[in-house]
Amino acid sequence: MKNIITIGRELGSGGRTVGKIVAESLGIAYYDRELIDEVAKQSGFSADFVEKTEENLSNSFLYNLAMSSSYFYDMFSLSANDAAPLTTQVFLAQQKAILQYAEKPCVIVGRCADYILRERDDVLSVFLYADPEKRLERAIEQYNCDKKKASELISKSDRARSRHYSAFTDWEWGSREHYDLMLNTSAVGFDSAAHIICSAFRAEPSAE
Amino acid sequence: MKNIITIGRELGSGGRTVGKIVAESLGIAYYDRELIDEVAKQSGFSADFVEKTEENLSNSFLYNLAMSSSYFYDMFSLSANDAAPLTTQVFLAQQKAILQYAEKPCVIVGRCADYILRERDDVLSVFLYADPEKRLERAIEQYNCDKKKASELISKSDRARSRHYSAFTDWEWGSREHYDLMLNTSAVGFDSAAHIICSAFRAEPSAE
Repeated sequence: MKNIITIGRELGSGGRTVGKIVAESLGIAYYDRELIDEVAKQSGFSADFVEKTEENLSNSFLYNLAMSSSYFYDMFSLSANDAAPLTTQVFLAQQKAILQYAEKPCVIVGRCADYILRERDDVLSVFLYADPEKRLERAIEQYNCDKKKASELISKSDRARSRHYSAFTDWEWGSREHYDLMLNTSAVGFDSAAHIICSAFRAEPSAE
Repeated sequence: MKNIITIGRELGSGGRTVGKIVAESLGIAYYDRELIDEVAKQSGFSADFVEKTEENLSNSFLYNLAMSSSYFYDMFSLSANDAAPLTTQVFLAQQKAILQYAEKPCVIVGRCADYILRERDDVLSVFLYADPEKRLERAIEQYNCDKKKASELISKSDRARSRHYSAFTDWEWGSREHYDLMLNTSAVGFDSAAHIICSAFRAEPSAE
């Protein structure tokens, strides 16, 4: 039986909207931005700093990782007070919060929650994406900007999420091997996407 | 409204089993190996030759494609009787059969059907995959072989399907951008996978 749903998502795919419908349908908690705020509060970082750090992981940080891959694995045993880079401190604080939230059934959008909870067998790991033109439409609406700006935001977000994800998980963002269900929300709509996620959440794989 | 479901799949993910359940639930036709036989018959190739050609696309053929990319696009306007390589002739004959089958609602497993029907907006494009250990179990059972042989079959099939797909479609096999729904059958089971596909097939995306 599943207890947790993690949702990775492309900007403009409606991940937050779908996640909220799912949580409401199942009567379980929902976390995304709230998580950041909580983390920021607990760690003594400002919410603004946490947000910026997460989506703007510096190239020099990645370079350091690449130069010393054992460092990457070692750092997970560091406490948030050790001399780890600030980005790592934020990640570790988020990890702590996610582990705590996941003690009860919930939906968690983003924040590498799928990776953080990878050892548990009661997690449904979902990735939501959408057709480029639909993502543009949503970004224009969401950020109240023109098409050019929306397109830039999407490219920047894709790069940042992919970079952040691979730096902290060593997995490829949006690649099927680590997800149970991947769904194009523009093909099915938000309500059906939520319905499909709920079906998968309730599924009991037989012995096949 | 959708009329067609195409299913791409990894060996050992249960694509055929799930596809058959879906077609039965929806009361529509189902094609996979039958399609090959039909194509072989229509084209004058033996069924055995078609099967071998499809999954064992030669490296020299790929080399030819790489050396002349315009040739790739041109060849689609060739008739099956022109002096195209045999693999291309088989592909063109399969394409013809798929276009014919897709005049009525149906489920088509494999055969690059998603690409062949890409211009239609009434197609639900699905990709099925599974956890490595589950694929192994199924391959051992399906081919009545030992673990080592099953593992070789899986690796060979992944390489062949990926190569065949990218040679004829110029798309990446199993990469999300061309699928509406991607599902790990070992996470949800075959019956739930079929149920989820039927839900997505019936979904009517709203204006969002």
